Amino acid sequence: MTFANVGTLGVKPGHRDDVVAILTRHNPQLAEAGCLQYEVGVDDEHPDTVFVTELWESAEAHRASLQLDSVRAAIAEAMPLLSGEMGGSQFTVVGSPLQG
Amino acid sequence: MTFANVGTLGVKPGHRDDVVAILTRHNPQLAEAGCLQYEVGVDDEHPDTVFVTELWESAEAHRASLQLDSVRAAIAEAMPLLSGEMGGSQFTVVGSPLQG
Repeated sequence: MTFANVGTLGVKPGHRDDVVAILTRHNPQLAEAGCLQYEVGVDDEHPDTVFVTELWESAEAHRASLQLDSVRAAIAEAMPLLSGEMGGSQFTVVGSPLQG
Repeated sequence: MTFANVGTLGVKPGHRDDVVAILTRHNPQLAEAGCLQYEVGVDDEHPDTVFVTELWESAEAHRASLQLDSVRAAIAEAMPLLSGEMGGSQFTVVGSPLQG
């Protein structure tokens, strides 16, 4: 079952683009680990927030990805730039109106 | 710029699957209107919530889609089943680690 992880990361003022750069750095290990989509975004009305929406082959694939060296390194690099405010949802995809 | 709309819809108890059925009904007008992705999901830990994550060609395409007859009809059909609790984020996609 496709698993979705959508969320917001609060960043320390002035560091949004640094966090975006870390999160969007090309990482071929993600697709190998079962990541189907990983979009990173911003909204100028919320300048201290980075938005992420991810789709994974399964919740297990997502959980396992957090142990990848590349992901752990990215988390360690981003952590000092984060405010600690986080939000989001995780859910199981059950359908789409785009499919017949 | 790809635009993302992610959110949660609170539903009246017992009506989650009815709302999922409305939202996942095949609607070819969405792709014509610039919808790139529209995933609907659930989480049994939150049985009175429906989750949605959408990608659109632009914020304008998303806004215009709300005027489509098919979308207005779906909103009118779902409205009596919703609790009124809603959450979510809208943002501009700036990149993905899946791309080189």
